[in-house]
Amino acid sequence: MSTTLITGGKVVNATGTAQADVLIDGERIAAVLAPGSTLLGHDLTASVDTVVNATGKYVIPGGIDAHTHMQMPFGGTEASDTFETGTRAAAWGGTTSIVDFVVQYPDENPLDRYAAWHEKAAGECAIDYGFHQILSDVQDSSLVAMDELVAEGVTSFKLFMAYKGVFLSDDGQILRAFQKGAKNGAMMMMHAENGAVIDVLVNQALDAGNTLPFFHGTSRPWQAEEEATHRAIMLADITGAPLYVVHVSAKQAVQQIAAARDRGMNVFGETCPQYLYLSLEDQLGASSEEWGNFEGAKWVCSTPLRSKHEGHQHYMWQSLRTNDIQMVSTDHCPFCMKGQKDMGIGDFSKIPNGVGSVEHRMDLMYQGVVAEQITLERWVEITSTTPARMFGMYGKKGVIQPGADGDIVVYDPHGHTSIGVNETHHMNMDYSAWEGFEIDGHVDTVLSRGKVIVDGDRYLGAKGDGKYFKRGLSQYLI
Amino acid sequence: MSTTLITGGKVVNATGTAQADVLIDGERIAAVLAPGSTLLGHDLTASVDTVVNATGKYVIPGGIDAHTHMQMPFGGTEASDTFETGTRAAAWGGTTSIVDFVVQYPDENPLDRYAAWHEKAAGECAIDYGFHQILSDVQDSSLVAMDELVAEGVTSFKLFMAYKGVFLSDDGQILRAFQKGAKNGAMMMMHAENGAVIDVLVNQALDAGNTLPFFHGTSRPWQAEEEATHRAIMLADITGAPLYVVHVSAKQAVQQIAAARDRGMNVFGETCPQYLYLSLEDQLGASSEEWGNFEGAKWVCSTPLRSKHEGHQHYMWQSLRTNDIQMVSTDHCPFCMKGQKDMGIGDFSKIPNGVGSVEHRMDLMYQGVVAEQITLERWVEITSTTPARMFGMYGKKGVIQPGADGDIVVYDPHGHTSIGVNETHHMNMDYSAWEGFEIDGHVDTVLSRGKVIVDGDRYLGAKGDGKYFKRGLSQYLI
Amino acid sequence: MSTTLITGGKVVNATGTAQADVLIDGERIAAVLAPGSTLLGHDLTASVDTVVNATGKYVIPGGIDAHTHMQMPFGGTEASDTFETGTRAAAWGGTTSIVDFVVQYPDENPLDRYAAWHEKAAGECAIDYGFHQILSDVQDSSLVAMDELVAEGVTSFKLFMAYKGVFLSDDGQILRAFQKGAKNGAMMMMHAENGAVIDVLVNQALDAGNTLPFFHGTSRPWQAEEEATHRAIMLADITGAPLYVVHVSAKQAVQQIAAARDRGMNVFGETCPQYLYLSLEDQLGASSEEWGNFEGAKWVCSTPLRSKHEGHQHYMWQSLRTNDIQMVSTDHCPFCMKGQKDMGIGDFSKIPNGVGSVEHRMDLMYQGVVAEQITLERWVEITSTTPARMFGMYGKKGVIQPGADGDIVVYDPHGHTSIGVNETHHMNMDYSAWEGFEIDGHVDTVLSRGKVIVDGDRYLGAKGDGKYFKRGLSQYLI
Amino acid sequence: MSTTLITGGKVVNATGTAQADVLIDGERIAAVLAPGSTLLGHDLTASVDTVVNATGKYVIPGGIDAHTHMQMPFGGTEASDTFETGTRAAAWGGTTSIVDFVVQYPDENPLDRYAAWHEKAAGECAIDYGFHQILSDVQDSSLVAMDELVAEGVTSFKLFMAYKGVFLSDDGQILRAFQKGAKNGAMMMMHAENGAVIDVLVNQALDAGNTLPFFHGTSRPWQAEEEATHRAIMLADITGAPLYVVHVSAKQAVQQIAAARDRGMNVFGETCPQYLYLSLEDQLGASSEEWGNFEGAKWVCSTPLRSKHEGHQHYMWQSLRTNDIQMVSTDHCPFCMKGQKDMGIGDFSKIPNGVGSVEHRMDLMYQGVVAEQITLERWVEITSTTPARMFGMYGKKGVIQPGADGDIVVYDPHGHTSIGVNETHHMNMDYSAWEGFEIDGHVDTVLSRGKVIVDGDRYLGAKGDGKYFKRGLSQYLI
Repeated sequence: MSTTLITGGKVVNATGTAQADVLIDGERIAAVLAPGSTLLGHDLTASVDTVVNATGKYVIPGGIDAHTHMQMPFGGTEASDTFETGTRAAAWGGTTSIVDFVVQYPDENPLDRYAAWHEKAAGECAIDYGFHQILSDVQDSSLVAMDELVAEGVTSFKLFMAYKGVFLSDDGQILRAFQKGAKNGAMMMMHAENGAVIDVLVNQALDAGNTLPFFHGTSRPWQAEEEATHRAIMLADITGAPLYVVHVSAKQAVQQIAAARDRGMNVFGETCPQYLYLSLEDQLGASSEEWGNFEGAKWVCSTPLRSKHEGHQHYMWQSLRTNDIQMVSTDHCPFCMKGQKDMGIGDFSKIPNGVGSVEHRMDLMYQGVVAEQITLERWVEITSTTPARMFGMYGKKGVIQPGADGDIVVYDPHGHTSIGVNETHHMNMDYSAWEGFEIDGHVDTVLSRGKVIVDGDRYLGAKGDGKYFKRGLSQYLI
Repeated sequence: MSTTLITGGKVVNATGTAQADVLIDGERIAAVLAPGSTLLGHDLTASVDTVVNATGKYVIPGGIDAHTHMQMPFGGTEASDTFETGTRAAAWGGTTSIVDFVVQYPDENPLDRYAAWHEKAAGECAIDYGFHQILSDVQDSSLVAMDELVAEGVTSFKLFMAYKGVFLSDDGQILRAFQKGAKNGAMMMMHAENGAVIDVLVNQALDAGNTLPFFHGTSRPWQAEEEATHRAIMLADITGAPLYVVHVSAKQAVQQIAAARDRGMNVFGETCPQYLYLSLEDQLGASSEEWGNFEGAKWVCSTPLRSKHEGHQHYMWQSLRTNDIQMVSTDHCPFCMKGQKDMGIGDFSKIPNGVGSVEHRMDLMYQGVVAEQITLERWVEITSTTPARMFGMYGKKGVIQPGADGDIVVYDPHGHTSIGVNETHHMNMDYSAWEGFEIDGHVDTVLSRGKVIVDGDRYLGAKGDGKYFKRGLSQYLI
Repeated sequence: MSTTLITGGKVVNATGTAQADVLIDGERIAAVLAPGSTLLGHDLTASVDTVVNATGKYVIPGGIDAHTHMQMPFGGTEASDTFETGTRAAAWGGTTSIVDFVVQYPDENPLDRYAAWHEKAAGECAIDYGFHQILSDVQDSSLVAMDELVAEGVTSFKLFMAYKGVFLSDDGQILRAFQKGAKNGAMMMMHAENGAVIDVLVNQALDAGNTLPFFHGTSRPWQAEEEATHRAIMLADITGAPLYVVHVSAKQAVQQIAAARDRGMNVFGETCPQYLYLSLEDQLGASSEEWGNFEGAKWVCSTPLRSKHEGHQHYMWQSLRTNDIQMVSTDHCPFCMKGQKDMGIGDFSKIPNGVGSVEHRMDLMYQGVVAEQITLERWVEITSTTPARMFGMYGKKGVIQPGADGDIVVYDPHGHTSIGVNETHHMNMDYSAWEGFEIDGHVDTVLSRGKVIVDGDRYLGAKGDGKYFKRGLSQYLI
Repeated sequence: MSTTLITGGKVVNATGTAQADVLIDGERIAAVLAPGSTLLGHDLTASVDTVVNATGKYVIPGGIDAHTHMQMPFGGTEASDTFETGTRAAAWGGTTSIVDFVVQYPDENPLDRYAAWHEKAAGECAIDYGFHQILSDVQDSSLVAMDELVAEGVTSFKLFMAYKGVFLSDDGQILRAFQKGAKNGAMMMMHAENGAVIDVLVNQALDAGNTLPFFHGTSRPWQAEEEATHRAIMLADITGAPLYVVHVSAKQAVQQIAAARDRGMNVFGETCPQYLYLSLEDQLGASSEEWGNFEGAKWVCSTPLRSKHEGHQHYMWQSLRTNDIQMVSTDHCPFCMKGQKDMGIGDFSKIPNGVGSVEHRMDLMYQGVVAEQITLERWVEITSTTPARMFGMYGKKGVIQPGADGDIVVYDPHGHTSIGVNETHHMNMDYSAWEGFEIDGHVDTVLSRGKVIVDGDRYLGAKGDGKYFKRGLSQYLI
């Protein structure tokens, strides 16, 4: 087993920074040491195989993106990143773990699907990966499967309050799944939008001839998100299950989450970079048409981008600071414009929903540090430490301390990253939702379980480097 | 300089635990290492001067009590613990730093008082100490002094909304001090009780012949605390100053703090063990008299103990979990029953206000872990990490990481501590406010800047071990 | 046309009282006059046909019960009061108008049902009556029917969030109906309980062998009501429809209503006497069994009686004072124990839901005046004036002023009413849910459109006295 | 005694309208009758002395302005309207009662001042008047005086949280006054602004050379009002006194009031036309200077006009609808620009605070009906009925019903009123704060206790028509 010493950097953990060296022995961190590369008189640089010079740079736990959908079948097509392309892109961007979603559609067996996902991912991934399980149709058998899956390290289950006939569970089904979660300790994840309301509004929009991508957003008003968020919270209240609301985009939904937390409930919220940086009006682009053109399809995702006139973005950044929102994932669900998004020309409801960001999350959130929206420590917390604690990976992941996996990123605050220029990204997408974003920092070196997989412009890793991570129960309950 | 290796323990930091060894070189932590006492083949135990075996025990950053009043002159007497006796008692209890209050009374020069406190403390203390400054009469000169004091490491200033003629500042004075705090970055601390209201109620109680200690509490209703807390928050809102409310005891005051935090304000709250464990009715003791007897004076403190019928205790524990209250200090302000508290026989308003707990805080809060009110990590956070971050000591204090001071406590979860039995405490008090409390844990070993000062039942430290800590600005702003 | 003069009484309207005489000419009030029975020198007593001496008594607008279910088909049986028996009982109790619900079940034509209800009621009623329409299955045709019904004076539509397969509308159907209400001005009424959640809990209770009436209540937790209330409010928010939540029983539901009102929404709440006086624990009765016996079926209604340990009753009275709840109806839906309620022996879910109170509402609420829970004026407001304004009857009903219908009750505060003793009530029920309630007041005289129908112990009215009231739009929007 | 019949109008009371005639016999209303001018065959027009034709017009209870300061000594000058000029102007504007403030400055005897105010008003007034008492320095003797004044019909007492040395009471004094109010039932009125904060900000503004009227507003931020409002509420909570907050201008203050009301407290709020129609930026006028010029002094009042960028106006109208604000008074306190307001040239703090509106309140609020901000009934409620109920005048004032005083206004919705053009107002002011406001309605006829005092353009009343009204306790408690 090889040894690596990262010297001269500033180690950033969630609660503070320290000028320190990090020694990795094999796959794990062996020691964090006062700087100087010596210990009790021993010169460590001489004893290790590799020295990474991090002088002037941040040494952070590798990013954890707890919400990705690699090669997910959806709406008659499949998310364009495979486990191979998606995880490699993640690695380039400083993310060393993902938690992806096993999809169960109605009438499918959750355990079969879980096995199928293993097959898809095994030997393909650049970085470690875990699985959440989507439950689309909660039956008695699903409840049994939930126990088995927890034993397999799938300790979180996602339900949907929207997408009737595809993903939607009714409130009774949700209640039963939550009861199980309260018992076996699994985190209950929720896509919180009132699908029945949205379906009516979508149909009314289409009937009125409002078929452009812009109307995707207007037919999913914040009230539909706030309502469903509150409902999910009450179901959690009845059952005692911990609840994690995915891709929160409306400030009113955050307020419901904050209120629940204030009264001591285990309710959590995740947001995504798109809700922090983009708004509904961006979908109009430079078009001179009142409702834009089909380019807006690039940002069709659900929950949708919110109107800049309603104050959501400001509130979302604030909530990241106040911990009313605890972490940032991408909801990475990429579709190409050509052959995928374009299925919705003439009918926005047929545009596959999703934005691809797995490669850019660490950079985009670091820009929040530059803009003084969050501190350096909070950056690490919301992108790595909290995801690890939330989903039972902490100790191995999410922190730089002895015994932890050597998942480490050396981030250069003096570097620069221009996103999307000259098609430079590594995600399998024919466009970038982040085209033109400039980041005042750069991912320099990435280690996955002790192995350097990204070194400046060189990719040193290989397909299959990443292993399945069997997760424990959430380590972040109130 | 000597070296120490703490082996076999479970290192507990605020965000997680790790089985790890800790190497201390001189006064500072040199490394945190994977367990096994070897590094790259070197046997460390052979290289160090001292090995502390922490097998089966917790290795935690030493406690920081950010609210103490050693030998404070008050009400014609003086708090009974000197810096010597008080800090030694703290050390016995696993606290390795205190932040004490320099007292400025009206017409005194803050800088003179600051100098006087240095004189009192220098060479006396068992552990490191810092100072907050009390401002009792905000004049133009006070504002100038605030800048000078920040340069001296006194980065927090306490004001009072009660104690007219002694400590009270009017809202205009508070506003001006807050404006200064907003500018120089100092943390503004507030004793938040409406003194004018309390003074009327106290006089009315005495006029009605209600002179027993019990009436101390009833003449300081929660509304007086809630009101003042809200008022302080609004003054912080006008000025932009960070605000830290001391000794919060009423749930309604917490709700005001929580609401301010929810809207993104830098507002913080501290509570004390007495508000987590004791209630107004405890002051009645075993007395058969309706309003108890003078024994109740033992627990006369301000803010007062709250009625158990109003749900404050439950709410306070919950708030520790939800982080609406961020930390626990003692407000250690001991007075003996004989010769001090007894000044108030026949007139509760003459009882010196204060409870002594500096020795028991770590134990009492650990009992909260045993009772599953808080997690092990949260115990460390509220007693050490957050105090350090809140008051500009983090990095040196409040964490076990390379470069930090070797302020470390080995805590034995299999030990036991019976408080107050046979006058076993080390505080200079003739009674214990905690008589009869049983703790399912025990402080085993205490290191202060690398030196073992408590080893089981032996006190190895000496007067003057503790040095003044020049604090920086708060590292915990939203 | 005959003339009547009510002399010597204290006229109580919603905003105040006045010592005044009331002259009725034919069906309408002709004048309200300063006491003395003379006007500009004319002796009025000599000129009128009838003089009612109300000295020492209250003269109030006749009660309006805006929520009754006469002979409603439900659960394989039919509510035991016919329009004849139910309205006569109402008259005895000082209620001179009801608004009853036309029931449309799925696949039925709303207009047909409306016609059928007219057939049932015509020529049967003792007092005036109007109709709300229940919509159980919102189709395109329902939306068309809503406009036609408004033209017919049916200006309010009730939807259900519970009773799947019987009444339940999904959120999309509710949204569409609300959109129509926002357009045509109709009041949208909601049975706000999350039926899907309740269905699961009911089944789980029965599966566990918990079949007694008591478990009806425990399987409908307040969270199910709070959740649905919030959801209905958000749907009203999206559409702009006015919303009226029926039979509110949980304080948390009231808080949702109050919050909506505070932000300016047209959201209203009704409660019922059972939620003001009775609690879940009353269903245990004097039974020595832990969960009571089948006698508890007498109070099986939905929303259910709430636990006395949760503070709902206190809050509900307070909300009547603060106007967060605007009015009190009965939800009169009587079933006999024998042959009806007893269908649920061995399975509480088969007990027909309902309590009969139409005869006692005015008395029960007057007792709230005696207990100083509400003022005399508020009594009139919540039982008559607000129902009239809420449902488009004001001017004719709900007030004593010239031009209004002569629907007047002389209420004797020195009288006494013992409810249910010796089977004295006039409702067609074989038990009383109010057995043993003592009222410090008595309905003395009742006039319906100028005709004395109750005179002390004599019933002077006749079947068919009551006419259909074609209501206008709500006169009580914020 | 003469008799008058008002025929053909629409009588508007707080809860509804009725087409009705009103018969006045002497000073009081004798009857309200169905239209047609006949009763049981008697032709009333033939029997009365005077017939007022109100066809097509509204017949409303005369306005009650519960907050005026006629010839009030303040800041070295005196409000420019005497009781004579001010009440006559009120009459012209449809206001038939005022409640003025007796002023007690520190060291004055409240009862002496009460007598002095009687002397000033007796024989001078055009309309009925009552008194509130200002208490500026609550001593033991003040508490005794409060009981005596209540017996005199002065059932409301105003305290100030601002104006140190002039009006300010400290919180202890306020508490004691509130305790008395809780006992004797008097309404406690509060000027809720944190004076200590404002004094600092005013001095800082002046020190910075910001002396123009505009800075009056910026030195009284909404936080100072919100804070004081909350504080007053908590003092009311401790004591149980009913609280009435005068001239509420900040939405955050309303939110505090609404929250108190939601939890069942007797807390009320009054706003004034200036907070509904004007904003801070209006003080800049057409001036090209950044901070305007001295013309802004016209609108210097406290609480100040609020910034239009903060949403206060919108919120205030909404609060009138939701009843979170219960009534509208003027805080009529007129000062001429020449010789009075101009005392503050070069120092805004020397500008006498006040705006004159007593003549325009009914018109300005009627324009809210035209703009559909409030209903016709709510107009009557907030300008007459609620003031009467709030301050113990209801029955005699505030309603059109038999036995009430003949204080009636015939208001013409087809008339028009241009305010301030050609110096047409009747107030003793050399400018109008309302210059240029156009009202789509007109005060047609005004009766005071049965006597027509305004008939179109003719003033028929006389000095001394108005009598002192001995008020009872508030009739509007929750």
